[in-house]
Amino acid sequence: MCRWLAYSGSPILLKEALYGGTHSLVDQSLHSRLGAETTNGDGFGVGWYGAPDTPGVFRSTEPAWNDSNLRELAGHISSPLFFSHIRAAIGSAVQQTNCHPFRHHRWLFMHNGYINEFATIKRDLILAVDPSLYPNIQGQADTEVLFFLALTFGLEHDPAAAVEQAIGLVEAVAERHGVPRPFQGTVATTNGESIWAFRYSSERNSRTLYYTTDVPTLRKLHPERQQLQEWSDDARLIVSEPLADISGVWNEVPESSYGIIDTGGGELRPFRPTTPSTSVPVRA
Amino acid sequence: MCRWLAYSGSPILLKEALYGGTHSLVDQSLHSRLGAETTNGDGFGVGWYGAPDTPGVFRSTEPAWNDSNLRELAGHISSPLFFSHIRAAIGSAVQQTNCHPFRHHRWLFMHNGYINEFATIKRDLILAVDPSLYPNIQGQADTEVLFFLALTFGLEHDPAAAVEQAIGLVEAVAERHGVPRPFQGTVATTNGESIWAFRYSSERNSRTLYYTTDVPTLRKLHPERQQLQEWSDDARLIVSEPLADISGVWNEVPESSYGIIDTGGGELRPFRPTTPSTSVPVRA
Amino acid sequence: MCRWLAYSGSPILLKEALYGGTHSLVDQSLHSRLGAETTNGDGFGVGWYGAPDTPGVFRSTEPAWNDSNLRELAGHISSPLFFSHIRAAIGSAVQQTNCHPFRHHRWLFMHNGYINEFATIKRDLILAVDPSLYPNIQGQADTEVLFFLALTFGLEHDPAAAVEQAIGLVEAVAERHGVPRPFQGTVATTNGESIWAFRYSSERNSRTLYYTTDVPTLRKLHPERQQLQEWSDDARLIVSEPLADISGVWNEVPESSYGIIDTGGGELRPFRPTTPSTSVPVRA
Amino acid sequence: MCRWLAYSGSPILLKEALYGGTHSLVDQSLHSRLGAETTNGDGFGVGWYGAPDTPGVFRSTEPAWNDSNLRELAGHISSPLFFSHIRAAIGSAVQQTNCHPFRHHRWLFMHNGYINEFATIKRDLILAVDPSLYPNIQGQADTEVLFFLALTFGLEHDPAAAVEQAIGLVEAVAERHGVPRPFQGTVATTNGESIWAFRYSSERNSRTLYYTTDVPTLRKLHPERQQLQEWSDDARLIVSEPLADISGVWNEVPESSYGIIDTGGGELRPFRPTTPSTSVPVRA
Repeated sequence: MCRWLAYSGSPILLKEALYGGTHSLVDQSLHSRLGAETTNGDGFGVGWYGAPDTPGVFRSTEPAWNDSNLRELAGHISSPLFFSHIRAAIGSAVQQTNCHPFRHHRWLFMHNGYINEFATIKRDLILAVDPSLYPNIQGQADTEVLFFLALTFGLEHDPAAAVEQAIGLVEAVAERHGVPRPFQGTVATTNGESIWAFRYSSERNSRTLYYTTDVPTLRKLHPERQQLQEWSDDARLIVSEPLADISGVWNEVPESSYGIIDTGGGELRPFRPTTPSTSVPVRA
Repeated sequence: MCRWLAYSGSPILLKEALYGGTHSLVDQSLHSRLGAETTNGDGFGVGWYGAPDTPGVFRSTEPAWNDSNLRELAGHISSPLFFSHIRAAIGSAVQQTNCHPFRHHRWLFMHNGYINEFATIKRDLILAVDPSLYPNIQGQADTEVLFFLALTFGLEHDPAAAVEQAIGLVEAVAERHGVPRPFQGTVATTNGESIWAFRYSSERNSRTLYYTTDVPTLRKLHPERQQLQEWSDDARLIVSEPLADISGVWNEVPESSYGIIDTGGGELRPFRPTTPSTSVPVRA
Repeated sequence: MCRWLAYSGSPILLKEALYGGTHSLVDQSLHSRLGAETTNGDGFGVGWYGAPDTPGVFRSTEPAWNDSNLRELAGHISSPLFFSHIRAAIGSAVQQTNCHPFRHHRWLFMHNGYINEFATIKRDLILAVDPSLYPNIQGQADTEVLFFLALTFGLEHDPAAAVEQAIGLVEAVAERHGVPRPFQGTVATTNGESIWAFRYSSERNSRTLYYTTDVPTLRKLHPERQQLQEWSDDARLIVSEPLADISGVWNEVPESSYGIIDTGGGELRPFRPTTPSTSVPVRA
Repeated sequence: MCRWLAYSGSPILLKEALYGGTHSLVDQSLHSRLGAETTNGDGFGVGWYGAPDTPGVFRSTEPAWNDSNLRELAGHISSPLFFSHIRAAIGSAVQQTNCHPFRHHRWLFMHNGYINEFATIKRDLILAVDPSLYPNIQGQADTEVLFFLALTFGLEHDPAAAVEQAIGLVEAVAERHGVPRPFQGTVATTNGESIWAFRYSSERNSRTLYYTTDVPTLRKLHPERQQLQEWSDDARLIVSEPLADISGVWNEVPESSYGIIDTGGGELRPFRPTTPSTSVPVRA
C-alpha cells in the first residue's frame, strides 16, 4: 500500500536515493525481486525543489520499475530536497491526479496508508475543505482530501497542528458514521525547507517509518563508504522501508509521533489528533 | 470542444459508424485532415449495449485517430445501440475518468459543450448531488457532475424532466455566483432502449446537433447505397456534426429542443430548464 | 516471465477465463496477492476470434490487474477461441508492439520464456525472415521474431514443423555465436480452429504448461460445479500456470512435447527442433 | 509532419523555448489554435545536456499540448543545449521508442520528414547498419534507422559527411527498388557542443528550416525585449517553423544546405548526398 522516501541535504541526483541501495525505492515497486510484501505498481510520483518558486512534480501511472522517463529524470535532476512515492492503489483510479506527492503552491504532501471506508465519509470530509481551496482538488484520492483538510486547518502556518486537526476530523466523522479504524499510515509534508513526517494510526498499529542517523556518525561507522563522504553533514533520508541493510543507519520513528527535519537537525514529538474547534474551519 | 455520435437500430459493427463516411467521427478527432474547426485529441470513449445487463465502456486518453485498440474493438463489436465521444478537454485533466460516456447501472451520458466557470460553482453543484450517489463520482469533469445531478433528479424515471432540472439548477447556481451563460451544449443519454438527445444553451446559441432521416426514405433517395439496404428501417444516427455530405440525410435538431429515439421512431419536443422544486433533492 | 492462457470450446465471455478461479490469470499479473514467484505487470494482450475473418487483438502496456478497459471488454466479448497473455518484460521496451499475442492474418502467436542473449543473435535471425514478411514486424520482442521465423518456415501450412524449424534455427545461430541455452519457454499458436501448444527449452528444463481434462470427465468428478455444466464437451484451457486448485483438472504437458487442440479433441507429440534445410527459406 | 526546435547558448529553462512565443512549439502540436497546416499530436520528445556525460531524454506518446509532465520539466530544467520534437506519425506506431530525439552515447538526432516507402527499402537499409550497432535500435521509425546509418558512416567523427552518406545510401537503395523521391526533410544532430542542421529532399523541395539572427543584432533591432538582454551573445534557435512573428529574427536555411552552430558562431554549407564507397561500411 505505497512506499515513500523524502530527502533533505546537499543537492544530490534523484537517482542516488531512488535507485541506490540493495533494496531501492524503485526495486520496492516490484517486490518479486526482493521478497518484500507488496507490489507498488499503480503509478509513482516525484516532487523536487530547484531554482523556481514552486517544486516540480513528475507523476505517472506506469509502474516505476519500467518507466524509462523516471530513470532519465532521476539521472539528470539534482535537488536539496525531494519526495518520491510509489503507489499501490486501494479503491481510487490509477491516474496521474491520484498519484502522490500532491502539491499546493510551495507545499508537497504524500502518504502511505489509507482512510478507511473513504467512500462512506468522503462527502462530509469534502464539505469541511475550505470552499476557496475546493476547486484545486484535482483527483479522487483519500490522501488529496487529507492534504486539503490540512491546508484548511493551517498547514502553511503550523503543519503539525494542521495534520493533527485533519486526522482528528477524519476520526470524528468516521465515528459519526460508525467506521472503525479510520486512519492508517505515515505522512510527509514539506515547504521546501523543513520536512514534517508523521506516523500514526487510529488503532495505534501504524505502518513503519524510518530516518537515517546523522551523517557524521555514519561516517565514523562506515568510513569505507565513499557516498557518505559526499553527503553533507545535515543530509537525511526518511523512508517507509529501509533501502539497504546497513548497521546503524536506520532509526524507527516511534508509534504516534512525528519528526521535523531541517538544516538545524531533527526532533521527534508525540502526535495527537485533535478535533477542529469550529465546524466551519477558518484559514489564517 | 468534443464531438459525439449515438446509434440505434439493427446491430452493426461500431466501425461502420465510427470510421465510416468521408468525415467520420474518428477523422473529426484530427481536424487537420478535414478542415473542421477543432482538434479533439484529448481522449475518447465508446459505450455499447450487448448481452450483459450493463453496457460496456471503453475509454482512453489517447487521440482516437491513433488508437489501435479502438480500431480493433470497433471492428469486432456489434451493437444495436452505442455512444461514442471524442474529447477536447477544457480545464479538467486528460484521464480516463473524465472521458465520456459516463455510466451508471444501465445508463450512459455524454456531452459536447461545457458548464461555464465550472470551478466557481462546482462545490454548490456537488452538494446538490444525492449523498447516496456522491461516492460514485469518479472524475472531475463538469459533465459527470451534470450526469449525477440528472440522476439525482430522476433521470432513470423521467429523463427529459431530470435533465431540465439539472440544467435548471446549473443556471440557478450560476446566477447566484454571477456566472454568465452557464450552460452550453448537446447532451445524449440512454438506458439501452431509447435515446434522449438535447440541444440547449443558456444564451440560445447552441452547438449543432443532427439526426438522420428515416431509413426507408433514405433508401428511396439513394438506392445505389448498399449500406442502406442492410440497415434496419428504424436505424438512426444522432451526431454533433454530419459524417458525410449526402443530400437528404441530416436533419438539424432545433435550438432549445430535444428528441427521443426508440424503436417506435422519434419525436422532437421543446426543452425548458426548470429550477428543482426542493433544495434537498429526493430520488424516487 | 510472462504467463498465458488459451481457450477453445463453446463461446464464453473472456472474463470467465481471465478473471475466474482462485488464481486467475489477472491475479497472476500481481503476484503479491497470491504468493506466486513473479510480477507480470509489463503489459498484457488478448486475441479473440469472432465474426470477422481476422481475430481481434487488444493490447496495453498497463498492468492487467488495474486496467479497467480489459475488465470491460472481458465482460462483454464472447468467443469460442481466444488467447490471453500477461507480460514480464526482459530487455525489450514496454510498448504495445511488444505485447503478445502477435497476429498475422488469421494467426495468433504467444510465448512465455525467452531467446537467450537475443541482442547477440537478433540480426542473424532477422536476416532469415522472408523479406516479403519482414516489413510486417512492428516491435522489437524476441517472440515476434520467432513468430516471423515460423511464418517463414510455413507456419500456416504445418505449424509444428515450422516451429521446430524456427527454434532449430535459433539454436543453430546461437551455437555459431557461442550463446548457451538459446531457447526457453512455452509457445501457443492458432489459426482460429486449432491450437498448437509447445513446451520446450534447449536445456530440457522448460517452463510449465498445463491443459484441462476433458469436460465430460470433469463433470463426473465435480458434479456440483455449475460452470462445468455450461461448458461444451470439447472445451479446453491451456495455461502456463493452473488457475485454481481443483483435483483432476490440470494435466502437465510433458517436457519437449506439443499438443494440438481442436474440435476433434487433443493429442500430444514429441517436439524436436530441426535445422532448416535451406539457408534462404522458401515459403510455400 | 513533425516540428522541431534546437537551442544552443547560455542555459535557459526549456519552457522559454518550448512554450514561449505566440506560436510556440507546443502550440504547434495542436494546430487548430493557430491555423498551421497539421496536428502534431502523436507524441513528443526532449533531449537536453546537463552535468552528466550523456544527455537526458524525455519522450511520451501523449500530445505535447496536454502533457502536464512536459510542462513541469520544462519549468524546472535549464540547459545550454537542447532538442525538442513533436511528432505526427506516418506509418510507424505511436510509442516512445519511435519518438525523437534518438540518442546514442552523447549524440542526439531528430528529423522532420520521412523516407519514402520505407517498408519497401527498410530491410536493405537495416542490413547496412554496422552489426555492432544494430542491437541498439529500439524502435521502428525511419529516422532511427537513418541515425544508425549515419553512426555507421562516422557521425561521431564527421557528422556532415556521415549524414551525406546515410542519405546517399537511402537514395541509392530507393533507386534500386524504384522508389521515387526517397528522402524529405530537415535533420538536426548534436554532440552537446555543436549542432548540425540539414535541409534536403531528393526532389529539392524541402521542408522549411530557420535559424535566429545573432543576439547582438537582435538586441539592437528590439531593445525593448527584455528576454534578449538575458540571452548570451552566442544563443541560437533552429526551428522548422518560426515561433513568433518578429521582424529580423528568422533566417531561412537555403535548399540543399546545412549549418553548424557552435560557440564560435554558425556557418552554412551546401549539402550533397554521396554514395558510401564500400558496401560493407567500416566504422572508424
